[in-house]
Amino acid sequence: MNLLLLFPEELTSTQNQARLCDRRHRHIRQVLRAEVGDEIKVGLVNGALGKGRLTKIDDQCVEMDLRFDCDPPPPLPSTLILALPRPKVLKRLLQTITSFGVKKIYLLNAARVEKSYWQTPLLRPGSLLEQFLLGLEQAGDTVLPELHCQKLFKPFVEDELPTLLAGTLPLVAHPAGSDPCPASLKRPTTLAVGPEGGFVPYEIDKLMECGFRPVHLGERVLRVEAAVPALLGRMS
Amino acid sequence: MNLLLLFPEELTSTQNQARLCDRRHRHIRQVLRAEVGDEIKVGLVNGALGKGRLTKIDDQCVEMDLRFDCDPPPPLPSTLILALPRPKVLKRLLQTITSFGVKKIYLLNAARVEKSYWQTPLLRPGSLLEQFLLGLEQAGDTVLPELHCQKLFKPFVEDELPTLLAGTLPLVAHPAGSDPCPASLKRPTTLAVGPEGGFVPYEIDKLMECGFRPVHLGERVLRVEAAVPALLGRMS
Repeated sequence: MNLLLLFPEELTSTQNQARLCDRRHRHIRQVLRAEVGDEIKVGLVNGALGKGRLTKIDDQCVEMDLRFDCDPPPPLPSTLILALPRPKVLKRLLQTITSFGVKKIYLLNAARVEKSYWQTPLLRPGSLLEQFLLGLEQAGDTVLPELHCQKLFKPFVEDELPTLLAGTLPLVAHPAGSDPCPASLKRPTTLAVGPEGGFVPYEIDKLMECGFRPVHLGERVLRVEAAVPALLGRMS
Repeated sequence: MNLLLLFPEELTSTQNQARLCDRRHRHIRQVLRAEVGDEIKVGLVNGALGKGRLTKIDDQCVEMDLRFDCDPPPPLPSTLILALPRPKVLKRLLQTITSFGVKKIYLLNAARVEKSYWQTPLLRPGSLLEQFLLGLEQAGDTVLPELHCQKLFKPFVEDELPTLLAGTLPLVAHPAGSDPCPASLKRPTTLAVGPEGGFVPYEIDKLMECGFRPVHLGERVLRVEAAVPALLGRMS
Protein backbone atom coordinates (compact mmCIF):
# COMPACT_ATOMS: atom_id res chain seq x y z
CA MET A 1 0.00 0.00 0.00
CA ASN A 2 1.77 3.13 -1.24
CA LEU A 3 -1.30 5.29 -0.77
CA LEU A 4 -4.13 5.26 1.76
CA LEU A 5 -7.42 5.58 -0.12
CA LEU A 6 -10.49 7.15 1.48
CA PHE A 7 -14.05 7.27 0.24
CA PRO A 8 -15.69 10.71 0.32
CA GLU A 9 -18.33 9.44 2.75
CA GLU A 10 -15.60 8.51 5.24
CA LEU A 11 -14.61 12.14 5.71
CA THR A 12 -16.11 14.41 8.35
CA SER A 13 -18.57 17.02 7.13
CA THR A 14 -15.74 19.56 7.11
CA GLN A 15 -13.92 17.24 4.68
CA ASN A 16 -10.65 17.55 6.55
CA GLN A 17 -10.68 14.67 9.02
CA ALA A 18 -11.20 10.90 8.96
CA ARG A 19 -11.34 8.00 11.38
CA LEU A 20 -10.42 4.50 10.20
CA CYS A 21 -10.95 1.20 12.00
CA ASP A 22 -10.39 -1.44 9.30
CA ARG A 23 -7.43 -2.96 7.44
CA ARG A 24 -6.10 0.55 6.83
CA HIS A 25 -5.91 1.06 10.61
CA ARG A 26 -3.92 -2.17 10.90
CA HIS A 27 -1.70 -1.19 7.98
CA ILE A 28 -0.85 2.17 9.56
CA ARG A 29 -0.06 0.57 12.92
CA GLN A 30 1.59 -2.69 11.91
CA VAL A 31 3.20 -2.11 8.53
CA LEU A 32 3.94 1.61 8.52
CA ARG A 33 4.38 1.64 12.31
CA ALA A 34 3.33 5.28 12.15
CA GLU A 35 2.93 7.47 15.22
CA VAL A 36 0.87 10.53 16.10
CA GLY A 37 2.26 13.48 14.14
CA ASP A 38 3.46 11.39 11.19
CA GLU A 39 2.18 12.24 7.74
CA ILE A 40 1.08 9.59 5.27
CA LYS A 41 0.12 9.81 1.62
CA VAL A 42 -3.66 9.77 1.19
CA GLY A 43 -6.06 9.92 -1.73
CA LEU A 44 -9.75 10.45 -2.16
CA VAL A 45 -11.33 7.74 -4.32
CA ASN A 46 -11.90 9.34 -7.76
CA GLY A 47 -10.45 12.57 -6.35
CA ALA A 48 -7.30 14.36 -5.24
CA LEU A 49 -4.11 13.16 -3.55
CA GLY A 50 -2.84 14.69 -0.32
CA LYS A 51 -1.46 14.10 3.14
CA GLY A 52 -3.00 12.75 6.33
CA ARG A 53 -1.38 13.83 9.61
CA LEU A 54 -2.12 11.27 12.33
CA THR A 55 -3.79 12.80 15.38
CA LYS A 56 -4.71 9.65 17.29
CA ILE A 57 -3.77 5.96 17.12
CA ASP A 58 -5.03 3.25 19.43
CA ASP A 59 -6.07 -0.39 19.32
CA GLN A 60 -9.46 0.44 17.80
CA CYS A 61 -8.80 3.08 15.21
CA VAL A 62 -6.72 5.87 13.79
CA GLU A 63 -7.71 9.52 13.31
CA MET A 64 -6.10 12.00 10.98
CA ASP A 65 -6.25 15.55 9.69
CA LEU A 66 -6.42 15.66 5.92
CA ARG A 67 -5.17 18.01 3.27
CA PHE A 68 -5.86 17.26 -0.41
CA ASP A 69 -3.78 19.40 -2.74
CA CYS A 70 -2.57 17.37 -5.68
CA ASP A 71 -4.02 15.70 -8.81
CA PRO A 72 -3.74 11.94 -9.29
CA PRO A 73 -1.42 10.80 -12.10
CA PRO A 74 -2.92 11.12 -15.59
CA PRO A 75 -4.68 7.97 -16.85
CA LEU A 76 -3.06 5.67 -19.38
CA PRO A 77 -4.83 6.49 -22.68
CA SER A 78 -5.40 2.78 -23.36
CA THR A 79 -8.59 0.80 -23.39
CA LEU A 80 -8.03 -2.87 -22.69
CA ILE A 81 -10.22 -5.61 -24.17
CA LEU A 82 -9.30 -8.84 -22.48
CA ALA A 83 -10.69 -12.31 -23.17
CA LEU A 84 -11.81 -13.45 -19.72
CA PRO A 85 -8.90 -15.36 -18.17
CA ARG A 86 -9.26 -18.01 -15.47
CA PRO A 87 -10.17 -16.54 -12.09
CA LYS A 88 -6.74 -16.85 -10.44
CA VAL A 89 -5.14 -14.98 -13.33
CA LEU A 90 -8.00 -12.47 -13.53
CA LYS A 91 -7.54 -11.47 -9.90
CA ARG A 92 -3.85 -10.62 -10.26
CA LEU A 93 -4.39 -9.07 -13.66
CA LEU A 94 -7.14 -6.70 -12.49
CA GLN A 95 -4.76 -5.32 -9.86
CA THR A 96 -1.94 -5.08 -12.40
CA ILE A 97 -4.03 -3.39 -15.08
CA THR A 98 -5.31 -0.89 -12.51
CA SER A 99 -1.79 -0.18 -11.28
CA PHE A 100 -0.78 0.71 -14.86
CA GLY A 101 -3.51 3.37 -14.98
CA VAL A 102 -5.88 1.71 -17.47
CA LYS A 103 -9.34 3.22 -16.93
CA LYS A 104 -11.48 1.27 -19.37
CA ILE A 105 -11.54 -2.52 -19.24
CA TYR A 106 -13.76 -4.84 -21.27
CA LEU A 107 -13.84 -8.51 -20.33
CA LEU A 108 -14.83 -10.38 -23.44
CA ASN A 109 -16.04 -13.86 -24.20
CA ALA A 110 -14.16 -15.83 -26.86
CA ALA A 111 -14.17 -19.37 -28.23
CA ARG A 112 -11.30 -20.43 -25.95
CA VAL A 113 -12.75 -18.86 -22.79
CA GLU A 114 -14.20 -21.56 -20.53
CA LYS A 115 -17.86 -20.80 -19.89
CA SER A 116 -17.46 -21.52 -16.16
CA TYR A 117 -15.09 -18.56 -15.76
CA TRP A 118 -18.08 -16.22 -16.03
CA GLN A 119 -19.41 -17.67 -12.77
CA THR A 120 -16.45 -16.52 -10.68
CA PRO A 121 -17.39 -14.50 -7.57
CA LEU A 122 -14.49 -12.20 -8.55
CA LEU A 123 -16.82 -10.55 -11.05
CA ARG A 124 -19.19 -9.38 -8.30
CA PRO A 125 -19.00 -5.61 -7.81
CA GLY A 126 -17.56 -5.78 -4.26
CA SER A 127 -14.84 -8.12 -5.33
CA LEU A 128 -13.92 -6.10 -8.40
CA LEU A 129 -13.78 -2.97 -6.25
CA GLU A 130 -11.37 -4.72 -3.88
CA GLN A 131 -8.97 -5.59 -6.71
CA PHE A 132 -9.19 -2.07 -8.15
CA LEU A 133 -8.45 -0.49 -4.75
CA LEU A 134 -5.41 -2.74 -4.29
CA GLY A 135 -4.14 -1.69 -7.72
CA LEU A 136 -4.71 2.02 -7.00
CA GLU A 137 -3.07 1.79 -3.57
CA GLN A 138 -0.05 0.15 -5.18
CA ALA A 139 0.25 2.72 -7.96
CA GLY A 140 -0.53 5.86 -5.96
CA ASP A 141 -3.62 6.61 -8.01
CA THR A 142 -7.22 7.39 -7.01
CA VAL A 143 -9.34 6.96 -10.13
CA LEU A 144 -11.25 3.69 -10.35
CA PRO A 145 -11.37 1.98 -13.75
CA GLU A 146 -14.70 1.17 -15.43
CA LEU A 147 -15.17 -2.50 -16.19
CA HIS A 148 -17.67 -3.97 -18.62
CA CYS A 149 -18.45 -7.65 -19.11
CA GLN A 150 -19.20 -8.64 -22.69
CA LYS A 151 -20.44 -12.19 -22.77
CA LEU A 152 -21.33 -12.17 -26.45
CA PHE A 153 -18.39 -11.71 -28.81
CA LYS A 154 -20.18 -11.02 -32.08
CA PRO A 155 -22.71 -8.35 -31.01
CA PHE A 156 -20.00 -6.56 -29.02
CA VAL A 157 -17.54 -6.52 -31.91
CA GLU A 158 -20.13 -5.62 -34.54
CA ASP A 159 -22.29 -3.15 -32.65
CA GLU A 160 -20.26 -1.56 -29.85
CA LEU A 161 -16.62 -1.82 -30.78
CA PRO A 162 -16.66 0.57 -33.79
CA THR A 163 -17.81 3.43 -31.50
CA LEU A 164 -15.27 2.53 -28.80
CA LEU A 165 -12.41 2.54 -31.28
CA ALA A 166 -13.07 6.06 -32.55
CA GLY A 167 -9.90 8.14 -32.19
CA THR A 168 -7.77 5.25 -30.95
CA LEU A 169 -5.20 2.95 -32.51
CA PRO A 170 -6.66 -0.58 -32.30
CA LEU A 171 -4.06 -3.34 -31.77
CA VAL A 172 -4.64 -7.02 -31.10
CA ALA A 173 -1.91 -9.18 -29.59
CA HIS A 174 -1.52 -12.09 -32.00
CA PRO A 175 1.80 -13.89 -32.34
CA ALA A 176 1.18 -15.39 -35.80
CA GLY A 177 1.87 -13.37 -38.95
CA SER A 178 1.89 -9.94 -37.42
CA ASP A 179 4.20 -6.93 -36.97
CA PRO A 180 6.22 -6.14 -33.84
CA CYS A 181 4.14 -4.16 -31.38
CA PRO A 182 4.95 -0.45 -31.75
CA ALA A 183 6.60 1.19 -28.74
CA SER A 184 6.20 4.51 -26.92
CA LEU A 185 2.90 5.40 -28.54
CA LYS A 186 1.89 8.82 -27.36
CA ARG A 187 -1.71 8.39 -28.44
CA PRO A 188 -4.88 6.62 -27.33
CA THR A 189 -4.89 2.91 -28.09
CA THR A 190 -7.33 0.04 -27.80
CA LEU A 191 -5.50 -3.17 -27.01
CA ALA A 192 -7.20 -6.56 -27.38
CA VAL A 193 -5.63 -9.60 -25.75
CA GLY A 194 -6.98 -13.10 -26.35
CA PRO A 195 -7.31 -16.08 -24.03
CA GLU A 196 -4.57 -18.68 -23.44
CA GLY A 197 -4.29 -20.31 -26.85
CA GLY A 198 -5.25 -17.05 -28.56
CA PHE A 199 -8.28 -15.79 -30.43
CA VAL A 200 -9.52 -18.26 -33.05
CA PRO A 201 -9.17 -17.23 -36.73
CA TYR A 202 -12.84 -16.16 -36.93
CA GLU A 203 -12.34 -13.82 -33.98
CA ILE A 204 -9.12 -12.36 -35.39
CA ASP A 205 -10.88 -11.79 -38.72
CA LYS A 206 -13.78 -10.00 -37.01
CA LEU A 207 -11.35 -7.80 -35.05
CA MET A 208 -9.36 -7.00 -38.18
CA GLU A 209 -12.57 -6.09 -40.04
CA CYS A 210 -13.12 -3.58 -37.24
CA GLY A 211 -9.69 -2.05 -37.87
CA PHE A 212 -7.50 -3.95 -35.41
CA ARG A 213 -3.90 -4.53 -36.46
CA PRO A 214 -2.31 -7.76 -35.17
CA VAL A 215 0.97 -7.20 -33.30
CA HIS A 216 3.45 -9.44 -31.50
CA LEU A 217 6.19 -9.25 -28.88
CA GLY A 218 8.61 -11.64 -30.56
CA GLU A 219 8.59 -15.34 -31.36
CA ARG A 220 7.93 -16.45 -27.81
CA VAL A 221 4.45 -17.29 -26.58
CA LEU A 222 3.80 -15.43 -23.32
CA ARG A 223 1.21 -16.11 -20.69
CA VAL A 224 -1.59 -13.53 -20.58
CA GLU A 225 -0.34 -12.25 -17.20
CA ALA A 226 3.10 -11.60 -18.71
CA ALA A 227 1.87 -10.34 -22.08
CA VAL A 228 -0.48 -7.67 -20.70
CA PRO A 229 2.14 -5.81 -18.59
CA ALA A 230 4.70 -6.27 -21.37
CA LEU A 231 2.35 -4.68 -23.92
CA LEU A 232 1.26 -1.87 -21.59
CA GLY A 233 4.88 -1.13 -20.63
CA ARG A 234 5.91 -1.14 -24.27
CA MET A 235 3.12 1.03 -25.64
CA SER A 236 3.11 3.68 -22.87
CA MET B 1 2.84 -26.25 -22.34
CA ASN B 2 3.42 -25.07 -25.90
CA LEU B 3 6.48 -27.25 -26.34
CA LEU B 4 7.41 -30.69 -25.04
CA LEU B 5 10.97 -30.52 -23.72
CA LEU B 6 13.23 -33.57 -23.68
CA PHE B 7 16.60 -34.03 -22.05
CA PRO B 8 19.30 -35.54 -24.31
CA GLU B 9 19.62 -38.56 -21.97
CA GLU B 10 15.93 -39.36 -22.53
CA LEU B 11 16.49 -40.09 -26.21
CA THR B 12 17.35 -43.52 -27.55
CA SER B 13 20.94 -44.05 -28.65
CA THR B 14 19.87 -43.33 -32.21
CA GLN B 15 18.64 -39.91 -31.00
CA ASN B 16 15.37 -40.25 -32.86
CA GLN B 17 12.99 -41.82 -30.37
CA ALA B 18 11.80 -41.24 -26.83
CA ARG B 19 9.50 -42.83 -24.27
CA LEU B 20 7.86 -40.65 -21.59
CA CYS B 21 6.01 -41.78 -18.48
CA ASP B 22 5.74 -38.62 -16.35
CA ARG B 23 3.70 -35.39 -16.37
CA ARG B 24 4.48 -35.02 -20.08
CA HIS B 25 2.73 -38.34 -20.73
CA ARG B 26 -0.30 -37.08 -18.82
CA HIS B 27 -0.18 -33.76 -20.69
CA ILE B 28 -0.15 -35.47 -24.07
CA ARG B 29 -3.07 -37.73 -23.11
CA GLN B 30 -5.23 -35.47 -21.01
CA VAL B 31 -4.60 -31.92 -22.21
CA LEU B 32 -3.58 -32.36 -25.83
CA ARG B 33 -5.70 -35.53 -26.17
CA ALA B 34 -3.27 -36.58 -28.87
CA GLU B 35 -3.48 -39.89 -30.69
CA VAL B 36 -1.04 -42.20 -32.42
CA GLY B 37 0.11 -40.50 -35.62
CA ASP B 38 -0.29 -36.95 -34.28
CA GLU B 39 2.71 -34.63 -34.33
CA ILE B 40 3.60 -32.41 -31.41
CA LYS B 41 6.18 -29.67 -31.06
CA VAL B 42 9.25 -30.92 -29.22
CA GLY B 43 12.56 -29.42 -28.13
CA LEU B 44 15.83 -30.75 -26.83
CA VAL B 45 16.91 -28.95 -23.64
CA ASN B 46 19.66 -26.52 -24.70
CA GLY B 47 19.28 -27.79 -28.26
CA ALA B 48 17.09 -27.79 -31.36
CA LEU B 49 13.34 -27.66 -31.87
CA GLY B 50 11.48 -30.25 -33.88
CA LYS B 51 8.49 -32.56 -34.11
CA GLY B 52 7.57 -35.74 -32.28
CA ARG B 53 5.24 -38.17 -34.06
CA LEU B 54 3.39 -40.33 -31.57
CA THR B 55 3.87 -44.05 -32.19
CA LYS B 56 2.29 -45.48 -29.03
CA ILE B 57 0.08 -44.16 -26.24
CA ASP B 58 -1.24 -46.17 -23.32
CA ASP B 59 -1.94 -45.78 -19.60
CA GLN B 60 1.72 -46.05 -18.69
CA CYS B 61 3.63 -44.05 -21.25
CA VAL B 62 3.89 -42.50 -24.65
CA GLU B 63 6.45 -43.22 -27.36
CA MET B 64 7.39 -41.02 -30.27
CA ASP B 65 9.66 -40.68 -33.28
CA LEU B 66 11.63 -37.46 -33.22
CA ARG B 67 12.95 -35.07 -35.82
CA PHE B 68 14.92 -32.00 -34.71
CA ASP B 69 15.37 -29.50 -37.51
CA CYS B 70 14.98 -26.00 -36.26
CA ASP B 71 16.87 -23.52 -34.02
CA PRO B 72 15.26 -22.20 -30.83
CA PRO B 73 14.32 -18.50 -30.85
CA PRO B 74 17.27 -16.15 -30.33
CA PRO B 75 17.89 -15.16 -26.70
CA LEU B 76 16.86 -11.76 -25.37
CA PRO B 77 20.12 -9.80 -25.18
CA SER B 78 19.31 -8.68 -21.64
CA THR B 79 20.94 -9.63 -18.37
CA LEU B 80 18.59 -9.23 -15.42
CA ILE B 81 19.80 -8.32 -11.95
CA LEU B 82 16.91 -8.74 -9.57
CA ALA B 83 16.81 -8.00 -5.85
CA LEU B 84 15.54 -11.28 -4.40
CA PRO B 85 11.72 -10.99 -4.12
CA ARG B 86 9.58 -12.97 -1.72
CA PRO B 87 9.30 -16.64 -2.67
CA LYS B 88 5.76 -16.53 -4.06
CA VAL B 89 6.70 -13.70 -6.39
CA LEU B 90 10.07 -15.27 -7.23
CA LYS B 91 8.41 -18.47 -8.42
CA ARG B 92 6.13 -16.74 -10.91
CA LEU B 93 8.83 -14.31 -11.93
CA LEU B 94 11.39 -17.02 -12.75
CA GLN B 95 8.90 -18.58 -15.15
CA THR B 96 8.06 -15.19 -16.64
CA ILE B 97 11.67 -14.09 -17.07
CA THR B 98 12.51 -17.41 -18.71
CA SER B 99 9.52 -17.14 -21.03
CA PHE B 100 10.83 -13.73 -22.22
CA GLY B 101 14.13 -15.34 -23.25
CA VAL B 102 16.41 -13.83 -20.59
CA LYS B 103 19.45 -16.12 -20.30
CA LYS B 104 21.44 -14.50 -17.49
CA ILE B 105 19.79 -13.85 -14.15
CA TYR B 106 21.46 -12.55 -11.00
CA LEU B 107 19.49 -12.64 -7.77
CA LEU B 108 20.93 -9.96 -5.56
CA ASN B 109 20.73 -9.09 -1.92
CA ALA B 110 19.71 -5.52 -1.01
CA ALA B 111 18.85 -3.60 2.14
CA ARG B 112 15.12 -4.13 1.64
CA VAL B 113 15.38 -7.86 0.89
CA GLU B 114 14.25 -9.92 3.88
CA LYS B 115 17.10 -12.22 4.95
CA SER B 116 14.69 -15.16 5.30
CA TYR B 117 13.94 -15.11 1.56
CA TRP B 118 17.38 -16.65 0.92
CA GLN B 119 16.22 -19.78 2.75
CA THR B 120 13.44 -20.57 0.28
CA PRO B 121 13.54 -24.14 -1.14
CA LEU B 122 12.78 -22.51 -4.51
CA LEU B 123 16.46 -21.64 -4.80
CA ARG B 124 17.48 -25.31 -4.76
CA PRO B 125 18.72 -26.46 -8.18
CA GLY B 126 15.86 -28.92 -8.80
CA SER B 127 13.28 -26.31 -8.00
CA LEU B 128 14.91 -23.64 -10.15
CA LEU B 129 15.11 -26.12 -13.03
CA GLU B 130 11.38 -26.80 -12.69
CA GLN B 131 10.52 -23.09 -13.01
CA PHE B 132 12.88 -22.66 -15.96
CA LEU B 133 11.38 -25.65 -17.78
CA LEU B 134 7.86 -24.27 -17.26
CA GLY B 135 8.99 -20.93 -18.70
CA LEU B 136 10.66 -22.57 -21.70
CA GLU B 137 7.67 -24.85 -22.36
CA GLN B 138 5.42 -21.79 -22.32
CA ALA B 139 7.62 -19.74 -24.64
CA GLY B 140 8.60 -22.49 -27.08
CA ASP B 141 12.28 -22.18 -26.22
CA THR B 142 14.89 -24.78 -25.22
CA VAL B 143 17.82 -22.86 -23.76
CA LEU B 144 17.98 -22.80 -19.95
CA PRO B 145 18.96 -19.52 -18.33
CA GLU B 146 21.96 -19.32 -15.98
CA LEU B 147 21.12 -18.10 -12.52
CA HIS B 148 23.57 -16.74 -9.97
CA CYS B 149 22.80 -15.88 -6.36
CA GLN B 150 24.67 -12.85 -5.02
CA LYS B 151 24.13 -12.59 -1.31
CA LEU B 152 26.59 -9.74 -0.82
CA PHE B 153 25.66 -6.50 -2.55
CA LYS B 154 28.90 -4.54 -2.25
CA PRO B 155 31.46 -7.13 -3.40
CA PHE B 156 29.21 -8.08 -6.33
CA VAL B 157 28.71 -4.50 -7.46
CA GLU B 158 32.34 -3.48 -6.95
CA ASP B 159 34.16 -6.58 -8.14
CA GLU B 160 31.94 -8.49 -10.57
CA LEU B 161 29.49 -6.04 -12.05
CA PRO B 162 31.98 -3.92 -14.06
CA THR B 163 32.99 -7.01 -16.08
CA LEU B 164 29.37 -8.10 -16.56
CA LEU B 165 28.36 -4.70 -17.88
CA ALA B 166 30.97 -4.61 -20.63
CA GLY B 167 29.29 -3.97 -23.97
CA THR B 168 25.80 -3.57 -22.47
CA LEU B 169 23.59 -0.61 -21.63
CA PRO B 170 23.09 -0.68 -17.83
CA LEU B 171 19.67 0.54 -16.67
CA VAL B 172 18.21 0.47 -13.18
CA ALA B 173 14.46 0.76 -12.60
CA HIS B 174 14.07 3.65 -10.17
CA PRO B 175 10.91 5.75 -10.18
CA ALA B 176 12.41 8.83 -8.46
CA GLY B 177 14.23 11.48 -10.47
CA SER B 178 14.94 9.42 -13.54
CA ASP B 179 14.26 9.41 -17.29
CA PRO B 180 11.55 7.38 -19.04
CA CYS B 181 12.82 3.90 -19.85
CA PRO B 182 13.97 3.81 -23.47
CA ALA B 183 11.98 1.53 -25.79
CA SER B 184 12.85 -0.91 -28.58
CA LEU B 185 16.54 -1.08 -27.73
CA LYS B 186 18.21 -3.28 -30.30
CA ARG B 187 21.32 -3.78 -28.19
CA PRO B 188 22.46 -5.77 -25.14
CA THR B 189 21.25 -4.34 -21.86
CA THR B 190 21.74 -5.06 -18.18
CA LEU B 191 18.58 -4.30 -16.26
CA ALA B 192 18.59 -4.00 -12.46
CA VAL B 193 15.29 -4.12 -10.55
CA GLY B 194 15.13 -3.44 -6.82
CA PRO B 195 12.99 -5.01 -4.12
CA GLU B 196 9.49 -3.83 -3.12
CA GLY B 197 10.21 -0.35 -1.73
CA GLY B 198 13.15 0.03 -4.12
CA PHE B 199 16.91 0.12 -3.75
CA VAL B 200 18.06 2.41 -0.90
CA PRO B 201 19.99 5.57 -1.88
CA TYR B 202 23.37 3.95 -1.08
CA GLU B 203 22.58 1.09 -3.45
CA ILE B 204 21.41 3.39 -6.23
CA ASP B 205 24.60 5.45 -5.81
CA LYS B 206 26.76 2.34 -6.05
CA LEU B 207 24.91 1.20 -9.18
CA MET B 208 25.22 4.66 -10.76
CA GLU B 209 28.96 4.71 -9.99
CA CYS B 210 29.12 1.49 -12.02
CA GLY B 211 27.45 3.21 -14.95
CA PHE B 212 23.77 2.37 -14.40
CA ARG B 213 21.25 4.96 -15.57
CA PRO B 214 18.03 5.20 -13.53
CA VAL B 215 14.87 4.85 -15.62
CA HIS B 216 11.16 4.81 -14.87
CA LEU B 217 7.88 3.64 -16.40
CA GLY B 218 5.80 6.66 -15.40
CA GLU B 219 4.60 8.13 -12.13
CA ARG B 220 2.94 4.96 -10.92
CA VAL B 221 4.66 2.55 -8.57
CA LEU B 222 4.40 -0.97 -9.97
CA ARG B 223 4.86 -4.27 -8.21
CA VAL B 224 8.05 -6.10 -9.16
CA GLU B 225 6.04 -8.80 -10.95
CA ALA B 226 4.38 -6.13 -13.13
CA ALA B 227 7.49 -3.96 -13.57
CA VAL B 228 9.78 -6.73 -14.84
CA PRO B 229 7.56 -7.85 -17.77
CA ALA B 230 6.73 -4.21 -18.52
CA LEU B 231 10.43 -3.31 -18.74
CA LEU B 232 11.36 -6.42 -20.74
CA GLY B 233 8.44 -5.85 -23.13
CA ARG B 234 9.40 -2.20 -23.53
CA MET B 235 13.12 -2.65 -24.07
CA SER B 236 12.94 -5.64 -26.45
